[in-house]
Amino acid sequence: MKQPTTLAQAYQQAVYPLGGHGRRNVQVLKDALEGVDGNLDSDMYGKGAVIEAFEARMARELGKPSAVFFPSGTMAQQIALRIWCDEAEMAKVAYHPLSHLEIHEEDGLKKLHRIETVLLADKERLITLADVQEMEDVACLLLELPQREIGGELPPFEELAAISAHCRERGIKLHLDGARLWEILPHYEKSASEICALFDSVYVSFYKGIGGVVGAILAGSEDFAAQSKVWKRRHGGDLISLYPYILSAEYYFDLRASKMSAYYAQAKELAAHYNGCRAVSTRPAVPVSNMFHVHVRLPKERLDQALIAVCEETGVALSPYTNATSDSTSAFEVSIGDRYAGVPPAKIEEAFRALDEKLKRAEEQTESPLR
Amino acid sequence: MKQPTTLAQAYQQAVYPLGGHGRRNVQVLKDALEGVDGNLDSDMYGKGAVIEAFEARMARELGKPSAVFFPSGTMAQQIALRIWCDEAEMAKVAYHPLSHLEIHEEDGLKKLHRIETVLLADKERLITLADVQEMEDVACLLLELPQREIGGELPPFEELAAISAHCRERGIKLHLDGARLWEILPHYEKSASEICALFDSVYVSFYKGIGGVVGAILAGSEDFAAQSKVWKRRHGGDLISLYPYILSAEYYFDLRASKMSAYYAQAKELAAHYNGCRAVSTRPAVPVSNMFHVHVRLPKERLDQALIAVCEETGVALSPYTNATSDSTSAFEVSIGDRYAGVPPAKIEEAFRALDEKLKRAEEQTESPLR
Repeated sequence: MKQPTTLAQAYQQAVYPLGGHGRRNVQVLKDALEGVDGNLDSDMYGKGAVIEAFEARMARELGKPSAVFFPSGTMAQQIALRIWCDEAEMAKVAYHPLSHLEIHEEDGLKKLHRIETVLLADKERLITLADVQEMEDVACLLLELPQREIGGELPPFEELAAISAHCRERGIKLHLDGARLWEILPHYEKSASEICALFDSVYVSFYKGIGGVVGAILAGSEDFAAQSKVWKRRHGGDLISLYPYILSAEYYFDLRASKMSAYYAQAKELAAHYNGCRAVSTRPAVPVSNMFHVHVRLPKERLDQALIAVCEETGVALSPYTNATSDSTSAFEVSIGDRYAGVPPAKIEEAFRALDEKLKRAEEQTESPLR
Repeated sequence: MKQPTTLAQAYQQAVYPLGGHGRRNVQVLKDALEGVDGNLDSDMYGKGAVIEAFEARMARELGKPSAVFFPSGTMAQQIALRIWCDEAEMAKVAYHPLSHLEIHEEDGLKKLHRIETVLLADKERLITLADVQEMEDVACLLLELPQREIGGELPPFEELAAISAHCRERGIKLHLDGARLWEILPHYEKSASEICALFDSVYVSFYKGIGGVVGAILAGSEDFAAQSKVWKRRHGGDLISLYPYILSAEYYFDLRASKMSAYYAQAKELAAHYNGCRAVSTRPAVPVSNMFHVHVRLPKERLDQALIAVCEETGVALSPYTNATSDSTSAFEVSIGDRYAGVPPAKIEEAFRALDEKLKRAEEQTESPLR
C-alpha cells in the first residue's frame, strides 16, 4: 500500500474519518433530487411554489413573519445589517472580532455597504452583557451562536435574553448569525423560534450541521423581508433558479434536523476522549453543540505526524488538517455529523489510545518538553 | 375540454408552444446530472476540478487569459464595472438606457457601488460610433450584444471594431454584456474570441440560448479575474458549491452551442411569418440572432384574444404573454430554442393563416381601424 504523505490524503483514504457527514460530492445533490418529480417547475426569480413553500416553512420554524432564501449567508447578513443601518440612518454595527463578516468576507460590508464596525469583546472570549452595556451607539448588534472561531461557545440563555432586552431598550436591532442555530437547540433546550424571538432578524444555514449543498434563510418582519429581496437582486443573488439549493436544503433538513441531539452527545463523548490525551485540551472543555476545537501543545508538524500515524495504525482519521497556533502549539476544528455513528466505539477507543501514545512520543522528541 | 382562460394557461397547455427549449423544471437539472459520476467532488469556494476546468475551457472559448464562474450576470457585470472604475479612479460608466443594469437590477450598481451612469443613444436605437465619440469621459463603456430590450439588434461588426478602437485610444475600458453572445455568432460569422478581442472584459450567460439552469462567466486578464474573485466573495457569490450550475451550464453548452445557426435561421423564418400578418411587424425586421420582438397595432386585450384563439384552433402557442406598449399597441418577445424544430411546418403555416384572420377580425372590431 502506498503510504499517505499528507494529513489530508490520510484522511481521505481512511476507513473511519470521524468528522462531518461524508464527502461533499455530486451524490449529495443526486440523493436530494432522487425523489423529486422532474415535472416540478423551477422557481423564477424568487417566485414559485418551490421557493415560497420553503420560505413559509422556515418562517414558521424560526417564528418570524417572513423568511427569504439566499444563496449565501455572506449575502444575507450584509443585507440584514444594511437594512438596519438604513433604518437607523447610522452606518455602524457591532460584532465579535472573529465574526464571519470581519474575517471571511473580504470586507464586503465595508467595501460594498460602507458600514463601520465596532468590535466587542476580544478574540479569546464571548461578547458579554457588560460589553453590550458599555458599547457605543450602533444601528445593530450581530451575535453569532455558537461563536464558531473560538470553538463554538455559547452564552447562558439568560445572558442572551438580557442582551436582547438591553438592545430593545436602547433601540438597537439585534441580528442572529445562526449559521449553526440548529446545532445549539439541544444544549439550550429551546426551540428555534424561542431563541429567534430574542432577535429582530435571523440568518440560518443549510450546509453546516444540516449538510445541504448551499443556502441560507434570512428571516424577520414582512417589511424587513421585502427590503431584503430588493437587496438580494442588487447583490446579484436573485437567481432565476435557486431550486437546486432549496430542494437539497429541505431534503437534508428533513434528514438531519432531528439528529442534532445525537451529534451534540457524540461531540461531548469525543471531546472527553481528546481531553484524556496528554498535551490536548478542547474548547469548549465540554461542547455545547456538535462542534469544538482541539488545541495541542505540540508544533503542527509533530501533531500532523501523530494524526497520520494514528490513521495508519487504526484506520481512524481524526482531522483532515491542522493549523499552527504558535511555534509550539497547533489546533483543529471538529464537527460531528453522520459519520461518527458509523464508527465502532472500540475503534474510537483504540484510536485515542494510539493518539495518546504518539503524543507522548512526540513530546519526548520535542526539545523542550511541553508538559 | 376546459377552455383556457389566460394566454399563459393556453401556452402551457398547448401541443405546440413555439418558444424556448422547454419548461424550466427540475428535469432540466436531472438530465444534466444523469451522466455525472456521483463521486465527483464538489468545488469548494471557487476551487477544485469542476470549476477550474470549466473556467479554463471558457477562457479558451472567449480568447481571454482567465475566466471566473459567477452565479449571476447581475453580480458579474457590477463587479466588472467596479474594477474598471477603481482602476481609473473614476466612478462613472456609460451604457444604453435599456441596459440590464439600468432597468432590471434595482440600481445595484448605484446603491452598492456608487457608480454614476451616462446613458448613450436612446430607448429606440443602438449606441453608435458617433455616440461614443461624443461621450463624456468614463471609466468603462458597456455594450450589450445583441441589445435585448429593442428586440435584439446588433451594430455592424465594423462599427463595433471602430468603437473598440476609439475606446482604446481614449483609455476607456470596453465591457461586453454578452448575455446572448453565443446567439449572435452565426450572424457575425465570427468566433466568440474574435468578438471578445474587441473588449477588455466579457460576461456570458448559460441560461438564455444555452438553456442551462443558472450561471455566468466573467472573462478578462489574469489580474482582472483575480480581482473579480475578491469581489465575488464580497457580494456573497463565492458559494461553497457552484457545481449544480456549472455542470448544467457545461452540459447544455455542449448540447446547444452548435445549434445557434439553426435557431438563427428559424428565427428569420418565424419573423417572416409574423411580418406576413396584418397589423404586425417584427424588430429587427430580419432577426440577427435567435430572438426578436413582435409589435402589433392592436390593444393588448385584442392581441391576447387572437393568440388564445389561434392556440385553441391549431394547437400552436405563439407566446405565453404580451405587453401593452400603448393603449392601441402591444408586443411580445420571441426566442427560438429546441422546441421550434419539433413543430411540423404545416402546423406553423396553419397557425399564421389563423393569426392573420383573427387579427383581421380584431381590427374590424376595434373602433378605430388601425390599418
